[in-house]
Amino acid sequence: MRQSQLFSKTLKNVAKEDQSINAQLLERGGFVYKNMAGVYSFLPLGLRVLQKIIQIIREEMNAIGGQEVTLNSLQDPEIWKKTDRWNDEKVDIWFKTKLKNNADLGLGYTHEEPLTELMSHYISSHKDLPAYVYQFQTKFRNELRAKSGLLRVREFVMKDLYSFTKTPEELEAFYEKAAEAYLNVFRRAGIGDVTYRTFASGGVFSKFSDEFQTVCKAGEDVVYLDRKKKIAVNKEVYEDDILEELGLNKKDLEEAKAIEVGNIFKLGTRFSEPLGLLYTDEQGKRHPVVMGSYGIGPGRVMATIVEVRSDEKGIVWPESVAPFQVHLLGLTGKDDQAVGKESEKVYKTLLDSGIEVLYDDRQASAGEKFADSDLIGIPWRAVVSKKTDGKIELKKRNTDKTKLVSTQELVKTLKK
Amino acid sequence: MRQSQLFSKTLKNVAKEDQSINAQLLERGGFVYKNMAGVYSFLPLGLRVLQKIIQIIREEMNAIGGQEVTLNSLQDPEIWKKTDRWNDEKVDIWFKTKLKNNADLGLGYTHEEPLTELMSHYISSHKDLPAYVYQFQTKFRNELRAKSGLLRVREFVMKDLYSFTKTPEELEAFYEKAAEAYLNVFRRAGIGDVTYRTFASGGVFSKFSDEFQTVCKAGEDVVYLDRKKKIAVNKEVYEDDILEELGLNKKDLEEAKAIEVGNIFKLGTRFSEPLGLLYTDEQGKRHPVVMGSYGIGPGRVMATIVEVRSDEKGIVWPESVAPFQVHLLGLTGKDDQAVGKESEKVYKTLLDSGIEVLYDDRQASAGEKFADSDLIGIPWRAVVSKKTDGKIELKKRNTDKTKLVSTQELVKTLKK
Repeated sequence: MRQSQLFSKTLKNVAKEDQSINAQLLERGGFVYKNMAGVYSFLPLGLRVLQKIIQIIREEMNAIGGQEVTLNSLQDPEIWKKTDRWNDEKVDIWFKTKLKNNADLGLGYTHEEPLTELMSHYISSHKDLPAYVYQFQTKFRNELRAKSGLLRVREFVMKDLYSFTKTPEELEAFYEKAAEAYLNVFRRAGIGDVTYRTFASGGVFSKFSDEFQTVCKAGEDVVYLDRKKKIAVNKEVYEDDILEELGLNKKDLEEAKAIEVGNIFKLGTRFSEPLGLLYTDEQGKRHPVVMGSYGIGPGRVMATIVEVRSDEKGIVWPESVAPFQVHLLGLTGKDDQAVGKESEKVYKTLLDSGIEVLYDDRQASAGEKFADSDLIGIPWRAVVSKKTDGKIELKKRNTDKTKLVSTQELVKTLKK
Repeated sequence: MRQSQLFSKTLKNVAKEDQSINAQLLERGGFVYKNMAGVYSFLPLGLRVLQKIIQIIREEMNAIGGQEVTLNSLQDPEIWKKTDRWNDEKVDIWFKTKLKNNADLGLGYTHEEPLTELMSHYISSHKDLPAYVYQFQTKFRNELRAKSGLLRVREFVMKDLYSFTKTPEELEAFYEKAAEAYLNVFRRAGIGDVTYRTFASGGVFSKFSDEFQTVCKAGEDVVYLDRKKKIAVNKEVYEDDILEELGLNKKDLEEAKAIEVGNIFKLGTRFSEPLGLLYTDEQGKRHPVVMGSYGIGPGRVMATIVEVRSDEKGIVWPESVAPFQVHLLGLTGKDDQAVGKESEKVYKTLLDSGIEVLYDDRQASAGEKFADSDLIGIPWRAVVSKKTDGKIELKKRNTDKTKLVSTQELVKTLKK
């Protein structure tokens, strides 16, 4: 894409009220626009990143048997009353609204209830199980204080998967597969090295749930890492007897701040019982379905990548989620028609080779183009200028080394 | 995908309250689930169709220079007050809600206001124009009566594009390109032959707007078609002087019911003026940006296809939007291990050839499998049974002709 046509621009200044690195860089880089506290729009560059993260998650969820759906935002109170999660005193993050006839509606902040109700129309026999169902869908959460840029917002897309199995043992088996899939997601999104499967407190149906915590100074959570074993525990379960149970030793643990990028939770029959999601076994006996839930916020993953992978000049996107593979800069001065022609040629070759390229064809100074390129953070920078003499100066965003390459070599490098 | 693993099933009966063809067939076929009046969830088959329609629209919007974004649902009243569209007496379809601090918020029923406000941060010069920005985003509309299945709902994904240009002439030129792109969308989605560009009343800034109306008995609108010229006028503009102006003759016009599947509208400076979206021209003079808006509801397109393309047995999907290319039925009786093996082999070959296949591997009667296949409406049906004797019986959903083909011939036919 031609940068001259990209309506979103890098901004010199953005509101200071939110000093978080992710908000500053994503707004300045033209990835997102802040509509109000905790509410963001995704601009073309930001949406490209978000869609790549979503696609990684989708592939990993499909790989463990996930079936994709999209549920509704507008929520019928009746089904939430059955699980006692409608009352504002029980759940304090509801946004509520009303139909014309004055009937109450809620805006979904999660989807256990509507999906369980839905599944009760399709699951009746042991033959219908297991089922793993997921969606990418907007959640609304009436947070008292939105903060930390895209880390705590009032409206965001969430991938939520729910598992439906016959027994706790089947749940356990899928739960471990889901945990692996989650680690795959974070590894593919470029934060695998700093993301820890973290024991957290469970609920009625299991001793523990699992969080996925990315170690980062901007984190709101405190975790205790065993770097060797690559696991962690969160503050809730940092107790001698639990550590012993987990085979962890206090002296091997390191306290760190972290961002929760995902969590998985055994629900048991917490929702299937009150909502009547039952199955009949081989002997004709009825049982409540055993459930689990598995959440990731792609926007939060995006913000976490920025927190973890940026430097003083801007963002450093991993190749897997970068908005484009390469940033082509044409350094055309006033009398550089030759450079203009040359960079147009390179642009066309890259497009023809199926390479995702952002082409800075703007009338702007070299300094401005370099600064914008560092801020936007595309993994490869390819410069065509008078100095490059028919070649292209190629540099990775995260190194200072440059080398001169031919167009052919450029394509070959990027195709790898 | 194996049908035995698809959690959504065809249903014998669905609620009678909504007798519309699209609701009946989409619910019975397992494409959608009705959560409440005017609120639907998309099940795996339905989401596949919806995503294909979305991808067609996306390609056509990109082809005319559209840049994709996603805006917010939660709306700040302040910007809507500036255009006088906050007051419930002016706009009667708002869903409204409140922040914890009791401040009002709305749920976006359209996005002229927030996008215009957003663009005012990126557009300041004539050099920043034109810009064409679109999204696929959920709209909330507090309809007094939701009806006709997916045709009039309270929550739905809409593709809305907005154009930002310097002059009415530039708007006019883009508007015509957008109208062409819309006709491409409906043609590609399989309803081009019955969809008419339809003159409708305009507003302050133009005499006409354009609707795209699909002729269909289930339609809520009445239009007057000139079948030869392939244009229509709606009821509002069915007047002698207007017809004369349009070069239409009452005697060539045919009254018909139709579904509005899209509409495009010249906004002029209706939103840019009150929201301060201005640009500076070459002489340094400031002008309000000239805007247009362009909407399609992919879910409504899906419902319209069902209304127009179904028969007494079920849906007949066009190949471009079908959930799968081929429905493979293995008619395995109790002692048909050979048929089971053979159909598994065909399934694997289709998958390996990159063909999207739904494989009915369930333990069910031939009659049930045939009936489900007709209901679901995948364009090709491929049957492996004792009778087909090592070959495959291939049939299109919309004909009765069958022929026996080899696996190789099957792949070749579907690859076309």
